[in-house]
Amino acid sequence: MAESVEQQLARFATATVLDDDARAMMRLSLYDWTVCALAGQREAVAEILIRKGEMEGGAPQATVIGGVRLPAPRAALINGAISHALDYDDTHFDHIGHTSVAVIPAALTMAQAQGRTMAEFIDAALIGSEAAIRIGTWLGRAHYQVGFHQTATSGAFGAALAGLRLIETTRPKIIAGLGLAASRASGLKCQFGTMGKPLNAGLAAEAGVEAALWAQAGLSAAERGVSGPLGFAATYHGENIGSAFDGMGADWRMKAVSHKFHACCHGLHAMLEALGSLNLTADEVASVKIATHPRWMSVCNNPAPRTGLEAKFSYKQAASMALMGIATGRVAAFDDAVALHPSVSAVAEKVTVVTDDSLTEMQARVTVTLKDGRVKDAFHDLSTTLPHDVLARKLRDKGRMLIGDAAEQVWDAVQGNSLRSYVDVLSETPSTGWEDGVDLIMEVLDYFDV
Amino acid sequence: MAESVEQQLARFATATVLDDDARAMMRLSLYDWTVCALAGQREAVAEILIRKGEMEGGAPQATVIGGVRLPAPRAALINGAISHALDYDDTHFDHIGHTSVAVIPAALTMAQAQGRTMAEFIDAALIGSEAAIRIGTWLGRAHYQVGFHQTATSGAFGAALAGLRLIETTRPKIIAGLGLAASRASGLKCQFGTMGKPLNAGLAAEAGVEAALWAQAGLSAAERGVSGPLGFAATYHGENIGSAFDGMGADWRMKAVSHKFHACCHGLHAMLEALGSLNLTADEVASVKIATHPRWMSVCNNPAPRTGLEAKFSYKQAASMALMGIATGRVAAFDDAVALHPSVSAVAEKVTVVTDDSLTEMQARVTVTLKDGRVKDAFHDLSTTLPHDVLARKLRDKGRMLIGDAAEQVWDAVQGNSLRSYVDVLSETPSTGWEDGVDLIMEVLDYFDV
Repeated sequence: MAESVEQQLARFATATVLDDDARAMMRLSLYDWTVCALAGQREAVAEILIRKGEMEGGAPQATVIGGVRLPAPRAALINGAISHALDYDDTHFDHIGHTSVAVIPAALTMAQAQGRTMAEFIDAALIGSEAAIRIGTWLGRAHYQVGFHQTATSGAFGAALAGLRLIETTRPKIIAGLGLAASRASGLKCQFGTMGKPLNAGLAAEAGVEAALWAQAGLSAAERGVSGPLGFAATYHGENIGSAFDGMGADWRMKAVSHKFHACCHGLHAMLEALGSLNLTADEVASVKIATHPRWMSVCNNPAPRTGLEAKFSYKQAASMALMGIATGRVAAFDDAVALHPSVSAVAEKVTVVTDDSLTEMQARVTVTLKDGRVKDAFHDLSTTLPHDVLARKLRDKGRMLIGDAAEQVWDAVQGNSLRSYVDVLSETPSTGWEDGVDLIMEVLDYFDV
Repeated sequence: MAESVEQQLARFATATVLDDDARAMMRLSLYDWTVCALAGQREAVAEILIRKGEMEGGAPQATVIGGVRLPAPRAALINGAISHALDYDDTHFDHIGHTSVAVIPAALTMAQAQGRTMAEFIDAALIGSEAAIRIGTWLGRAHYQVGFHQTATSGAFGAALAGLRLIETTRPKIIAGLGLAASRASGLKCQFGTMGKPLNAGLAAEAGVEAALWAQAGLSAAERGVSGPLGFAATYHGENIGSAFDGMGADWRMKAVSHKFHACCHGLHAMLEALGSLNLTADEVASVKIATHPRWMSVCNNPAPRTGLEAKFSYKQAASMALMGIATGRVAAFDDAVALHPSVSAVAEKVTVVTDDSLTEMQARVTVTLKDGRVKDAFHDLSTTLPHDVLARKLRDKGRMLIGDAAEQVWDAVQGNSLRSYVDVLSETPSTGWEDGVDLIMEVLDYFDV
């Protein structure tokens, strides 16, 4: 009889990682995750959750971004939410989920609670991320399309497997952990544009840690809670795409993870790259037509955002900002004052969005009609991979843009082999305030006359 | 424009309760919940979760059954699981969910954390229970049938509303709390027969408390996270049965809540009542045919239970036990040693289960062929309501069977007006050990010769 999904995942959770390129990519994602989390710690969602965590308190098992120590599940929740607060973390397009914000907080808190090494932490994060991608692919587009946030749902299973690996438990306990995660994994896409979105990432991390700890402590659960007749896939509109697990352990889909270089929903990035390649300014432009994959329409086509947060999910608003020369790589670009500036909203009126079935979810085409009647178009595909050193350089530039010179210490800690040093960086690096950028951009905007 | 589901619920959450009969029924359910929880505190799932809770610790905001004090969300989780551990708590058949185990722990921990009175606690539990029943009815049978555990899903929203009422927050915050609960509510029916089932009740209670506290602290969420286009109902196979909310606030469906007098899944009770009315013994019986509503087949028709816990979900095993004179009202009846006794399993072979569409979920028919060739049949309908004093007497008998003389102190505290006295009873009443009953039953069984 073929192995069940649960059995395959349990075997994978304890496998030895043999691919150093996959590990190197995991360290790049850890760097990217860390700078996003450090820059996110002054966001309102972070402050609210840290304050609540401090009020509830408990055993100092694991570190929250900024230095507070809390029981592992609570630290995982808060770190997950903080790191997704800016919506600037990595994405995997196989299943359309943010793997790092769900899996890294779970791996990190469990590595601390279990006294593990940096290398063990990295491997657990890699295993958990790969599993989340595979599970999300197995659940399929139907699961995402109906309204589930893959970051939260597949992410919870990846987080659970990362945690279970660090506990080094038995195969039946890993399967129990997956069964328990099946009852706890949740999170809806309708939260996009609210604090509920970053919370979803935290819920995934917490669900994974809780499931791992419950299994360790001896709770029993459905043996096929993920793939059985009344299991997670059957109830959460899963497609059960069996090929999703082909080559798991040998091929690492995590190597194709996509990092953000614009501070908004990943669904906007191919468009922003295409538009940017034309080097146009708002003055020259009469109209812009954006063609994108139909699936993005329910995700990031907010036609009239009312907050900077909502603007991160708006083709029109983001395209307008790019045309006005606002650096969409800066978090400050999505401050309410910038993103909702009357000039930005006026230029946004020139933009229309259409769907094109022939495009993948990672592609976009823009067609710009200039005031002089000329038409220019451009296409971009995010799946074009960058060489490791080019990607590393771009990420380090992003890190400096987010947290200034402290980015260098983060880089060293992430590449090093001391979990303690890495945790120290998480505890002690202040958010240096991307907010400064707002004034700079506003000065430019105020001179605009639309 | 018609009010959204969220708006209706937010209005209901702050309404004044005008129906004393509904309140009286809530107190009966609180009594039933309390004796189940006190009797459940020595179950393995209780010990595991209390130990984990103590290790994680934190601010002593609320009381766990047995006296440990923990932050409110943790206490809610543990109390929810403990009170459902014996599967002996109440059920509402409108949506098929155990409302008390999800809602009471949330109301109780929030009442303690917010310094509320006994009367305010009772009203919050009633509002939350009624809301859970209404939401579950609105989600409909499709939601339950596909695999969701209404106790956990609708229960989370009821728990959230109970908690939000006790915080006495504003309408927008109540709607945010519902939106946050929509991302956290979860729990699968495939856990039945494992510790994952009582955990689901705890997850609902915890989800509700967390959602209420997050909303209070200022987290934003989808405004129509429950009923919107990508909201909870749309993703969780909800049927959106609008009439579910008719008369909410005036009519109390909670008055029709059903209490258990057998220590197993409620789906078996109509059968056990029908079979019991025939006064037969296993010796006389050649075969038994049980007719039940088709929906129960995926819930409690385990044909070959491997544990006492699984036997609670087995028509065959429970019918066999009843025929052998084992008091299925005693928790001891579902101890492994009793429920899986070879004599019980042998008699279970005489039992077949068939479905009958003409029966409701609260009805069952049994047809027994005797060894002498005669055929007897009986029918029972659980929806036949009992007068208040009869129900109270039956519940007090059940209480004494579960926790002995301490049941009287519980009765007094539940009927009283001091939350502190009630909490003292929860802290200080030991589980007096239903396990004693096992030896008694085993002696009877060992004389059986099948």
